[in-house]
Amino acid sequence: MKRRIRMGMVGGGPGAFIGGVHRVAARFDGQIELVCGVFSQDEAKNKSMADELFLPVEKCYPDYKTMIEKESMLPEGERMDFLSITTPNNTHFDIAMAALDHGFHVVCEKPMTLNSEQAKKLQAKVKETGLVFVLMHNYSAYPMIRQMRKMIASGVLGDLRKIVASYDLGWLAAPNAGKQAVWRTNPKFSGIAACVGDIGTHAEQLIEFTTGLKIAELSADLATFVEGRTLDDDATIMLRMNNGSKGVIELSEVACGEENQFKLRVYGSLGCLEWSQQTPENLCLKTNDAPMKVLRRGWAGMDDDVKGMVRLPAGHPEGFLEAFANIYADFTKAFLAYKEGKVYDGCYPTVEDGVREMVFIEKVVESSKKNGAWTKL
Amino acid sequence: MKRRIRMGMVGGGPGAFIGGVHRVAARFDGQIELVCGVFSQDEAKNKSMADELFLPVEKCYPDYKTMIEKESMLPEGERMDFLSITTPNNTHFDIAMAALDHGFHVVCEKPMTLNSEQAKKLQAKVKETGLVFVLMHNYSAYPMIRQMRKMIASGVLGDLRKIVASYDLGWLAAPNAGKQAVWRTNPKFSGIAACVGDIGTHAEQLIEFTTGLKIAELSADLATFVEGRTLDDDATIMLRMNNGSKGVIELSEVACGEENQFKLRVYGSLGCLEWSQQTPENLCLKTNDAPMKVLRRGWAGMDDDVKGMVRLPAGHPEGFLEAFANIYADFTKAFLAYKEGKVYDGCYPTVEDGVREMVFIEKVVESSKKNGAWTKL
Amino acid sequence: MKRRIRMGMVGGGPGAFIGGVHRVAARFDGQIELVCGVFSQDEAKNKSMADELFLPVEKCYPDYKTMIEKESMLPEGERMDFLSITTPNNTHFDIAMAALDHGFHVVCEKPMTLNSEQAKKLQAKVKETGLVFVLMHNYSAYPMIRQMRKMIASGVLGDLRKIVASYDLGWLAAPNAGKQAVWRTNPKFSGIAACVGDIGTHAEQLIEFTTGLKIAELSADLATFVEGRTLDDDATIMLRMNNGSKGVIELSEVACGEENQFKLRVYGSLGCLEWSQQTPENLCLKTNDAPMKVLRRGWAGMDDDVKGMVRLPAGHPEGFLEAFANIYADFTKAFLAYKEGKVYDGCYPTVEDGVREMVFIEKVVESSKKNGAWTKL
Amino acid sequence: MKRRIRMGMVGGGPGAFIGGVHRVAARFDGQIELVCGVFSQDEAKNKSMADELFLPVEKCYPDYKTMIEKESMLPEGERMDFLSITTPNNTHFDIAMAALDHGFHVVCEKPMTLNSEQAKKLQAKVKETGLVFVLMHNYSAYPMIRQMRKMIASGVLGDLRKIVASYDLGWLAAPNAGKQAVWRTNPKFSGIAACVGDIGTHAEQLIEFTTGLKIAELSADLATFVEGRTLDDDATIMLRMNNGSKGVIELSEVACGEENQFKLRVYGSLGCLEWSQQTPENLCLKTNDAPMKVLRRGWAGMDDDVKGMVRLPAGHPEGFLEAFANIYADFTKAFLAYKEGKVYDGCYPTVEDGVREMVFIEKVVESSKKNGAWTKL
Repeated sequence: MKRRIRMGMVGGGPGAFIGGVHRVAARFDGQIELVCGVFSQDEAKNKSMADELFLPVEKCYPDYKTMIEKESMLPEGERMDFLSITTPNNTHFDIAMAALDHGFHVVCEKPMTLNSEQAKKLQAKVKETGLVFVLMHNYSAYPMIRQMRKMIASGVLGDLRKIVASYDLGWLAAPNAGKQAVWRTNPKFSGIAACVGDIGTHAEQLIEFTTGLKIAELSADLATFVEGRTLDDDATIMLRMNNGSKGVIELSEVACGEENQFKLRVYGSLGCLEWSQQTPENLCLKTNDAPMKVLRRGWAGMDDDVKGMVRLPAGHPEGFLEAFANIYADFTKAFLAYKEGKVYDGCYPTVEDGVREMVFIEKVVESSKKNGAWTKL
Repeated sequence: MKRRIRMGMVGGGPGAFIGGVHRVAARFDGQIELVCGVFSQDEAKNKSMADELFLPVEKCYPDYKTMIEKESMLPEGERMDFLSITTPNNTHFDIAMAALDHGFHVVCEKPMTLNSEQAKKLQAKVKETGLVFVLMHNYSAYPMIRQMRKMIASGVLGDLRKIVASYDLGWLAAPNAGKQAVWRTNPKFSGIAACVGDIGTHAEQLIEFTTGLKIAELSADLATFVEGRTLDDDATIMLRMNNGSKGVIELSEVACGEENQFKLRVYGSLGCLEWSQQTPENLCLKTNDAPMKVLRRGWAGMDDDVKGMVRLPAGHPEGFLEAFANIYADFTKAFLAYKEGKVYDGCYPTVEDGVREMVFIEKVVESSKKNGAWTKL
Repeated sequence: MKRRIRMGMVGGGPGAFIGGVHRVAARFDGQIELVCGVFSQDEAKNKSMADELFLPVEKCYPDYKTMIEKESMLPEGERMDFLSITTPNNTHFDIAMAALDHGFHVVCEKPMTLNSEQAKKLQAKVKETGLVFVLMHNYSAYPMIRQMRKMIASGVLGDLRKIVASYDLGWLAAPNAGKQAVWRTNPKFSGIAACVGDIGTHAEQLIEFTTGLKIAELSADLATFVEGRTLDDDATIMLRMNNGSKGVIELSEVACGEENQFKLRVYGSLGCLEWSQQTPENLCLKTNDAPMKVLRRGWAGMDDDVKGMVRLPAGHPEGFLEAFANIYADFTKAFLAYKEGKVYDGCYPTVEDGVREMVFIEKVVESSKKNGAWTKL
Repeated sequence: MKRRIRMGMVGGGPGAFIGGVHRVAARFDGQIELVCGVFSQDEAKNKSMADELFLPVEKCYPDYKTMIEKESMLPEGERMDFLSITTPNNTHFDIAMAALDHGFHVVCEKPMTLNSEQAKKLQAKVKETGLVFVLMHNYSAYPMIRQMRKMIASGVLGDLRKIVASYDLGWLAAPNAGKQAVWRTNPKFSGIAACVGDIGTHAEQLIEFTTGLKIAELSADLATFVEGRTLDDDATIMLRMNNGSKGVIELSEVACGEENQFKLRVYGSLGCLEWSQQTPENLCLKTNDAPMKVLRRGWAGMDDDVKGMVRLPAGHPEGFLEAFANIYADFTKAFLAYKEGKVYDGCYPTVEDGVREMVFIEKVVESSKKNGAWTKL
C-alpha cells in the first residue's frame, strides 16, 4: 500500500494505561497511523486527548456510534481502516459488532466480551463479514513464546504431560488500588470474574497457544481476599487437557510484592520448556540427557519463521511493547492480505481465542461455585 | 560430653544414596561417630560396607534386631547412643519401635511410616519413652528456611493469603530409572503413594513449618504417566489452610529436565517471601512499597538465632549437606539436653511432623480417588 | 506546540541497523515525525527507503547538502526542525556543522567525530549557535542508569573507590562479520580505533555520566585478534579518576558467544551499585550492613525525577528502544524549551560528552602505543 | 588401607576461620582423622581446642617442632601421616620444611610462603623428599572448574584470546575488620602484598589452572583505600599470556557489599566459558552459532573424569566445603598412591603452583611500583 493503515480508537483517555500502549504499539513499525478516536465520555477529556495526539478536532468524535457512522461514509483512504477497542470489557461487544457491521476491521482488547453468548455472536459476525478481527493477547506475540509454540509443535518435548502456569501481581493487594482497579473489580464492567478474566485468560490462552492442546475440564478454587470486593482476586485452577496431560494455573492479583510475574512451564516425555514474562528474551530447554539450553531472542537456534519477528540483535533487550507491536504487525499482515483478497496464515489470536476465553471464565466460576467440581469446557 | 555421640545405622549399603548422605551429615561437625550398623541384607555387601567405613567386624550386625539387642546390653559409652534409620519406608516403623523400646534415640528418614496408624503408634511410643526422635526433613534445616519461618512468625508478611509450592524432578521420566526408583514406585515398600510420599511430604512439611499454619482441607489430582506403574508419579493438590488462606502444591517426578526443583512462595497482606532449593542461599522479600530485598545466608539482616546455624561466611556457598547436617546438629543438641535432663527447644522436625505427613498422604490419595473432592485433614 | 517536531535524517538506508532504530525511537512517543531524508548514496536505495517510509518523493534528497539548503529555505513548520545523523563516523562532523550553520538542531550518533580536533570545533559551533545538540549515548538513558546517577550523586555509596566496566560482544569474532563490520573496522570510516570507538566510548561515557567523576589518566592495552584487521578489536584500559578512585574498562568485540554484554559496577566506602545492560530493569545495591536491594524500574524506591521516564508499570519489560527513545524525549524537551527561549536542564549527553569521548579514544590509542604508559586526559 | 589417614594440624585455634574449614574438609569423606595438633600459641586456647576436638591431652602439642619431632618417633600407624598447615603466611615455610624433613606429607594453605625464594627452596625440598605436597587452592577443586579445564583442554573454545577474572569482597572496606584482617594486612605476617596475596593468587592460579596457559607479563596498579594500611587492598592487573592472548584481573577487598564474588570468563575463537564462585554449580558455554548451554554439576554433559568428583545428584547443591574436601580427596589419592609406590596423576595444586603464585605476587608489586611497567614473570 502506498499509505499508512488508518486506525480509529475507542478508549485510551487521560490516565488510561492500555489505550496508550495500543497507540505506541500501533505506530511502532510505522505502518499504522491514528486518524480518529473517541477517548473519553467526558467531552473535555476527549478533546484534550485528541489535542495531545495532534488529531484535528473533527476527528475527535463524541461517541463510537457517531464515529463508526461518519467514518463509514468517507471514501476508502480517507476513512479509518480499522478500529482499536480499548474500553472496559462490558462495551467490547457492541462496539465490535457495530464496527464489523460497517465494514471496519477490528483489534480488540481482551477479555473479548462480557460472556460466551456475546462471544459466539461476535464469532458468527466475524465469519459472516470476513473481516480481520485480532484479539489483543499480547503475551502470545513475544518471539520466545512463538518459538516455544514452534518447538512444541515440532516434537522437541515428546508427548506433553504437565503444564504449569502462574500469574501473580500485587497491584490489588490493598483495597484502594486506583482507578484502573475500580472497573476491573466491578461486575458491571468486568463480568462474572475479575482476576480470572484479567489474567487467568492470559494463562489459558498462552497454554492452548503454545501447546496446541485444549483444556478438556477444570477444577477451580476462587478466593476474594480484600474486603468489600464481590469478585475473585485470587484463584487456583487444576486442568485436564484433551491429550490426557495435566496442568495447573495459579493466579493472584493480591500477591503483594509481585510486579507482573507470569510464568509458564511445559513438560513432555522428552524435556521441558520454561518461560517467564519478566525475562521474556530467554526460553529455557531442559532435558534429562543434555545440558540446559537457554535460547535467546535473536541468537542462534531460533526457528526461521520466528526470526522474522526480531527487531533488534540479541542482547539489545526487547520488551512488552515489542510484543504488543507484534500483534499490530500481525494485524497489518492480515489487513494487507485481505486487501489483496488473500488470507494471512499467521498464528495471531483471533475471535476463536475470544470465544475460548469466555467459556473458560464461565467454567472456572461454575466449578468454583460447585466447590471445585470437575467441569468440562 | 567428653566423647563423641555414638551412632548406629540401619540401611545405607553399597549403591544407596541417602544412607551415605546421613553418614556425611552425621560426622560433619565432628560430634558424632558411626560405631555400628546393618548396611545390607546381603551378608557380603554388609561386611564390605563396614570395611569401607573402618568398622570392626563385630560391629557389623546381620540384622537390626540383633544389633539393637546386643548394643542394648553394652554399657553406656560403649553401646550406640542412637540409631539412624535409612531403609525403605515399609521398615521404618518396626525398626524405630524396637530402638525406642530398647532405650535408643532415633533419627529416621521420611516419610516416617507406611501409614498414619503406624505413625500414631510411633508418636505414642516416643511420648511414652521420652526419647529424642528426629525426622529427617532436611529442607527445613536450610538456614534461609529457618529465616523464612522466623520472618513470617514475626509478621513481616502480615496476614498470610496464598502459599505456592512446586517440586519437580525428571528422574522418573523414563520407565527404567534405576535401583532407587524401583522401591519408591512399589507399594509394598513405599505405601499408597510414590511421588506424594517421596516429595509431596517435603512440600507439605515445609509449608506448615515455615508458615506455622495447618492444611485444613485439600483437593488432589494424582496422575501416573509412565506405563507399568501402579502409584502416582505426578500430582496437583489445592489447599485451604486453617487461617482461611489458600495454597497449591504442584508435584512431578516425571518433569523431564528438572534436577531437584523445589520452590516455595508465601504471600501475605504485606509482602512475599520466596525460596528455591537449587539456590538455597537466597531468600527474597518482595513488598509493594520498597525495593526487593535478597537476604543471603551469612550476610546482614539475618535473625540472631538463625545466624548460629551458619558455618561459612556469606559468599562461600553452603548446600544440601549442610542442611542435612543441621538436622544432626539439632539431634546433637536435643541429645545433650536429654543427657542433662533438659529439653532442647529447637524447631527440628519430630514425630508430630511424621504423623502429619502420613495423614497428608492418605488424604491426598482419598481426595484423588473421589475425583478431587475437598477432604479434611 | 500544536504540531509534531519535524525530523530530517541522514543515513539509515536499506540494511542499516542504527538508522532504523533512530526512526522507531523518534516516533516512539508520538511527538516527532520524519519529514525528509537522505538514506543512501545509491539513488535507487535512497528512493526505495523513502517509499517504504511513506515519504513524498520530493522529500527524499540526493545528498545532505541539498537537503539542508532546500529545507532551510522553507518556512518554519514546513521545513525540518532538526537533523538526525546516523551515518559512519567520518561524516558526522561535516553534516553536523552544515546543519548547525543553517539553524537546524542536531541529534548525532556516537562517536561524535573522527578526532578531537573536529569535536572541539563542533563544540564551539554548538556554543556559537545556541542550538540543541544531542549525542546518542542511548545507554545513559536507561531509567536505572539515571537512577544510578541520582543515587551516587546523593551519596548512597559514600566516597567512590572503584569502577569496573566491561563490554563484550562476539559479533567480530570471525573475519567476515557482515556489512556493518566493514566500515567499523576500516580506519577511513571509523577513525583511529574500532572497538574502543564503537563500545569503549559507551563505557567511558557511562562511567563519567553515572559517577560524576572524570577519568584523570589511563593505561591501555589494545589488541587485534582477527587477522587482516588494522584496528583494535579488543582492549583493556586501567583508569585513575580525578577523585583518586581507580577503575578498569574491559572491552572486546571478539568475545565469541557474547551478545551485547555491557556491565557496570561502582564501589564506594558505603556500598556498591551494579547494572547490566542485558537485564536493564534491575539496579542492584549491595552494602556490608543490610541485605542486597534490587531496585526495579517502575517499582518503589525510584527517584521522583527518574519515575517520570517510566512508560510501563514494573514487570512489563522496557528495553533498548525505550532507552533510545528517552534520548529523543530529552531532545524533545530541549527543543521545546528552546522554542520558549528556555534551557532544558535534563542530563542528556551533549557535545561535551562528544569532545570527551574523542579525547578518550586518542589517549587510549596513545597509551597503548607507548606500551601502556599512563596518559593524562 | 585398613585404617584412616592420620592428620596433624598446625593452626586453627579458637576463632580461626580456615583451620576449622580444613578440619571439616579433611573428615568429609571419612578417610582422614585428626590425631594431633598445635592449635594456638596460647596454652589455654590450645588445650581448649584439643578438648573440643576430643583429642587426648598428650596429642595436643605446645609447638610444631615438638609435634613433628615426637610424632616422627612413633611407629607408622600411630604417628600422624601428614601435616595440615593453616597458620599465617610467614610461618608456612619453616613448618613445611620441618615436616618434610621428618618424612611427613604436607597440605599447606596458600599463599605458600613469604616470598619466591622460600617457595623455590620448598620446591626443591619436595622434589628431594618425594613426599606429597598439596597446596590448598580450593577453588581449583570445584567440579565445574575441573570441567572448565577439561573443556578448554579439549579445544571447545578454540584458540584462547581473552581471560577476565574478578575477585571482589567487602570485608576490608572498613578500617577495623576483625582479627582475621589484622594479620592479613600486616606485612610481617602477610608478606609484601595483602589483597594480591590473599585473593589475587586465587585468580592467578585459577587462570593458569583452567586455561593451561602461563602469564608471560603483567602490568599492575595497586591501591590502598583504607587509611592506616601499608599494604594493598585493591588492584587491577593486565595480563599478556604465553600464547599471545590477553587478560585482566580485577581485585578488591574494599568492594563494599560484595561477599566473595570471584568470577572467571575465558574467551576463545569458538566460544566462551563463564563461571562464578557464588553459583559454583553452573558452567556457562556461549558460542556464536548455538544457544547458550548451562552445564550443571552432576547433570548430563560432564566429562567422565569430573563425574567422579560428584558427591550428590544435580540439584542437591554442593558448595565451598565440598570443593575444599576435594583437595583432601586429591591428597588422599596421592597419599595412597605413594604408599603403593605409585604417583597419582590428578590435577591438584602443588608446590609448583606455590612457586608460581609467589613469583606472581612479586612481579605485581614490582610492576605497580614502576607505575604499571610491563613486567615479565
